[in-house]
Amino acid sequence: MRRVAAALVHYPVLDRGRQVVTTAITNLDLHDIARSAHTYGLSDYFIIHPIAAQRELAQRVQDHWTAGSGARRIPDRSPALGSLRIVSALEDAISALGEPEVWVTSAQADKESLGFADARVRLESEGPPVLIVFGTGWGLAPAVLERAAFQLDPVRSPRADGYNHLSVRAAAAIIFDRLLAPR
Amino acid sequence: MRRVAAALVHYPVLDRGRQVVTTAITNLDLHDIARSAHTYGLSDYFIIHPIAAQRELAQRVQDHWTAGSGARRIPDRSPALGSLRIVSALEDAISALGEPEVWVTSAQADKESLGFADARVRLESEGPPVLIVFGTGWGLAPAVLERAAFQLDPVRSPRADGYNHLSVRAAAAIIFDRLLAPR
Repeated sequence: MRRVAAALVHYPVLDRGRQVVTTAITNLDLHDIARSAHTYGLSDYFIIHPIAAQRELAQRVQDHWTAGSGARRIPDRSPALGSLRIVSALEDAISALGEPEVWVTSAQADKESLGFADARVRLESEGPPVLIVFGTGWGLAPAVLERAAFQLDPVRSPRADGYNHLSVRAAAAIIFDRLLAPR
Repeated sequence: MRRVAAALVHYPVLDRGRQVVTTAITNLDLHDIARSAHTYGLSDYFIIHPIAAQRELAQRVQDHWTAGSGARRIPDRSPALGSLRIVSALEDAISALGEPEVWVTSAQADKESLGFADARVRLESEGPPVLIVFGTGWGLAPAVLERAAFQLDPVRSPRADGYNHLSVRAAAAIIFDRLLAPR
């Protein structure tokens, strides 16, 4: 089994008009994805933000839940929030893991995307760590998608009209479950 | 395919000490679970709260995203938030659906719980609507669990230490995916 980590990118991501923007950190993106990542055995959950004040906000949230009063009130939260790694750029997450294989996620289909069954086989074989990268806003910018070893299949809707508007928190939970749930 | 709906219960649920309590509505429980439910084709997402002021809060959130400025800013959000049904008690959700089969969810294993593969077969066969019930806080009170036709298998962690602390938003997304994703 390979080491698996996740990253949530706040820059460079797209807005509704497909312009490259920086998004603000959302508190529940820290909590929910940390809890899902830790439950599914991921080693690290990187928060990528280029602005120092935003990284400090994330750090205060982490401190509250790993060492402050939050840790005393809900001790179950500590191990999950302890897996947060707050860094400036995706390169920092890549360096921290050595030479990971970067897998990006997108709600848009790509003709060469990696299916979840094949992805499970890859995770179970020997190899470098895998870094699964999620985008905030309207998804990862092309510059991030292009540097990935693989793009995972999108999570598809069963609806006839194809409506698909999952939160990144929900998409991350579903993707961890598809890749890492016990079978 | 049977009609499937979901309900999020704020009373009666358990607190950390396994006392029966009423929890407060969390904004992202409305958004994230509505978005996941609508993406996976559920017909309705019931918010169950016994306190009128809390129901009014949920109603204001729904109005903002289905008719107010939120609907204009992010139109994709409207169909999801439009599936919200804000009611006082689980009985109201049951009445609204006719005579649904009630399926409860829990992070705790139950020796007679329904596996996800069997659950998919049940959903694909003919039958009454299915109402999937989630609890806030530390989970549904025994009074709710006892009245269910089925309790779904818990979402299990692959970790050796069994750490499992998913948010209800993540658990709902995973359960909809396991039951309803295209195969």
